[in-house]
Amino acid sequence: MEKCAQKYKKLDNNDVKFLVDLLGQERVFTGKDINDDFSHDELGGVSKYPDAMVEVLSAEEVSKIMAYAYENNIPVVGRGSGTGLVGSSVPIEGGIMINMTQMNNILEIDEENLTLTLEPGVLLMDIAKYVEDHDLFYPPDPGEKSATIGGNISTNAGGMRAVKYGVTRDYVRGLEIVLPTGKILELGGKVVKNSSGYSIKDLICGSEGTLGIITKIILKLLPLPKKSISLLVPFPDLETAINTVPKIIKSKSIPTAIEFMQREVILAAEEFLGKKFPDNSSDAYLLLTFDGNSKEQIEADYEKVADICLEEGALDVYISDTDERKEAVWSARGAFLEAVKATTTEMDECDVVVPRNRVAEFVKYTNDLQKQFNIRIRSFGHAGDGNLHVYILRDDLSKEEWEKKLSDIFDCMYKKSEELDGLVSGEHGIGYAKKKYMFRQYGEDYIALMKNIKLAFDPKNILNPGKVCE
Amino acid sequence: MEKCAQKYKKLDNNDVKFLVDLLGQERVFTGKDINDDFSHDELGGVSKYPDAMVEVLSAEEVSKIMAYAYENNIPVVGRGSGTGLVGSSVPIEGGIMINMTQMNNILEIDEENLTLTLEPGVLLMDIAKYVEDHDLFYPPDPGEKSATIGGNISTNAGGMRAVKYGVTRDYVRGLEIVLPTGKILELGGKVVKNSSGYSIKDLICGSEGTLGIITKIILKLLPLPKKSISLLVPFPDLETAINTVPKIIKSKSIPTAIEFMQREVILAAEEFLGKKFPDNSSDAYLLLTFDGNSKEQIEADYEKVADICLEEGALDVYISDTDERKEAVWSARGAFLEAVKATTTEMDECDVVVPRNRVAEFVKYTNDLQKQFNIRIRSFGHAGDGNLHVYILRDDLSKEEWEKKLSDIFDCMYKKSEELDGLVSGEHGIGYAKKKYMFRQYGEDYIALMKNIKLAFDPKNILNPGKVCE
Repeated sequence: MEKCAQKYKKLDNNDVKFLVDLLGQERVFTGKDINDDFSHDELGGVSKYPDAMVEVLSAEEVSKIMAYAYENNIPVVGRGSGTGLVGSSVPIEGGIMINMTQMNNILEIDEENLTLTLEPGVLLMDIAKYVEDHDLFYPPDPGEKSATIGGNISTNAGGMRAVKYGVTRDYVRGLEIVLPTGKILELGGKVVKNSSGYSIKDLICGSEGTLGIITKIILKLLPLPKKSISLLVPFPDLETAINTVPKIIKSKSIPTAIEFMQREVILAAEEFLGKKFPDNSSDAYLLLTFDGNSKEQIEADYEKVADICLEEGALDVYISDTDERKEAVWSARGAFLEAVKATTTEMDECDVVVPRNRVAEFVKYTNDLQKQFNIRIRSFGHAGDGNLHVYILRDDLSKEEWEKKLSDIFDCMYKKSEELDGLVSGEHGIGYAKKKYMFRQYGEDYIALMKNIKLAFDPKNILNPGKVCE
Repeated sequence: MEKCAQKYKKLDNNDVKFLVDLLGQERVFTGKDINDDFSHDELGGVSKYPDAMVEVLSAEEVSKIMAYAYENNIPVVGRGSGTGLVGSSVPIEGGIMINMTQMNNILEIDEENLTLTLEPGVLLMDIAKYVEDHDLFYPPDPGEKSATIGGNISTNAGGMRAVKYGVTRDYVRGLEIVLPTGKILELGGKVVKNSSGYSIKDLICGSEGTLGIITKIILKLLPLPKKSISLLVPFPDLETAINTVPKIIKSKSIPTAIEFMQREVILAAEEFLGKKFPDNSSDAYLLLTFDGNSKEQIEADYEKVADICLEEGALDVYISDTDERKEAVWSARGAFLEAVKATTTEMDECDVVVPRNRVAEFVKYTNDLQKQFNIRIRSFGHAGDGNLHVYILRDDLSKEEWEKKLSDIFDCMYKKSEELDGLVSGEHGIGYAKKKYMFRQYGEDYIALMKNIKLAFDPKNILNPGKVCE
């Protein structure tokens, strides 16, 4: 772990007393009382316990803790469900971890302005259900439904429907944040347009908890599309499958989602869930969704796309138009990460994004790396938006072999991504684990500017230090 | 004009020689050779000539000029078509104006990634036509079609279709910018998703040329909707018209655009264009557009909305489904600003944005101000997204009376907007003219953060000084 030039104050009994006086004993955890979960996230290869973990219930509490930490030079990390994959929420300098999960109230649904106002600890699965009950729709749909919306906004994870609907940032209308100094700011609001000064809201989205702590959110909603269908399309091989995607995009029928998957991953998901996937006989699949308000329009769209798939070499086209059948394929898709994880001892992932017409080239390259490095690599992801999730599996490698191979493979993958005009992360962020690759791609001037921006918000560098750009 | 604490170097013969050596005599203008147009924009009540106006053809030229200016502490302003309304492109500290309008090449249309790569000087009207010829669609649609795309991104002006499609920022995938130091950065790219560090691209959008100069742009395109229709809906009065809008939104049929207009403005447009509007007998109108790929879907949507309008008190519903009839109403709408301007000696405008269900209250308030201040006020705008354009007309007021009344009226309007949870600018920006009102609404901490961000990009404060937050 890199050393921070600046020395932080180590949490002492007085600091803990401040926290207990503010929050009560039952919301302040120290030492052995801190659950192991809070020392790591889901991947990222980094772990460290905070000196204190506190549960907060209001922006005012966050503000008081931040102001105290600022005054006393104590590092602070905000944390949601801890489902990140790059170590963003790991308190690598110790200090105070602010657990935001108890701030989980939905505050208002406004059907005249089509907005949802809520606290950052609400889970994505709860948002989806809540708005659907009001016949409304929140399009961003990351695979990990137990993530909090606050954490999701912090990485700007866009999920499956970005092809048609865009990413999380596009649905964030307003934020309340607590700055590293403890000041509370309201950014944006219920308004649809905003050209009133620098868009700090858009900068906070994707800043991985390094510029401010999100304490309230106003989301943009859409009317719930009345119909949706999914197509599962088997192909003889992955290259043929993925090469079909740019042709679909070019055809001007925009599906809601286009995912790609390979048989090995489907088999792992079947095993993991104890449920059969509708088909597992082919090497590679595209899974597409179409949504809209009229059956005719959706049919016209998917028939055109089905024809393109068949022309390009698809073996068949399975249509899922009942909730049950859609559930069967999409629940398998949702379990891929966990399913792959369950087949090995340890894994790490590469979350590059490349232009849509370069996906096939990238996936082919990762397949070649399997042979070159004699290691298992599994990938799936968002063929429709160019965002890949490529998992490198440790299996029975020794720690040394694993670390060496992983580092070499990452090196190859991120170089390849750069060559294809891609970027280091499509949605999982940079955090701690991917800094090296972002630094290499962006170069000195770009990173220097990011560091300046960080200092503009956080002159003492106490909020989530050691992440993203430093 | 406020005094800048920091002293800039006054342009001298050596500096002009540097520019001439770099660009050639024919692209460097000084003194009397600078056209009056370059001393002001379309409104904003501020004017000042640059010491030199230069035309550039490449990012490298911009970079060399910026590096020289940075080295020598000379202020620089970038400028597109100069169609701004708040003085953003007026060189209030003199120095060098970089005219970007000759960098007007469309570089690439990529139908597999649905992107358009272009230079900042391309005009909005040329983008619209170019992509339509490829059966593609660039949704942002500000009223002023002779704006450059670079200028448009600098204010994040969203235009008429924000109701359904969002604003300009949502369609900017990548930018090349020149920093105040002269360094060139590439931000984003053709990729659909990006969580690779702070989103500097999103911060540049709407920063009104104060953080960097945009030299290349990658826009996101959509397939061109196959059908569109417009509805012109007369109402007995404006309040009834505008109060209908939240009910339309709540009905879950999202039109592409919902504009409101009053008879006085329509009459002015008829006079200005020398063409009849389809109807001018009613006090107030809503103008709606619906687009999509299927006639059936559009019909279902607009029939539902037409019914809502009639239930809420509309006098009739006129359907424009031919290109000719749509052209007649929308060309009138496009001419409103110029038409109103032509009826008076001078005017200024308020571009607030309020939540959609507060528009009626705001417009009613501005109507009341007419009587209170005995002045003509004309408004039109985007009822569907809450962004209003309210024009205060000088007519035959003396300079003193005009300045006093204008200041008092602005004061009232921006206070009212704040009361309604609105913001100072929906799309025209803050520039020079609206700083006072933004400062009042945001308060010290917020403005201090913006200034820090400005300094993170521009430590010598040489790029477009005196705008937005300082």
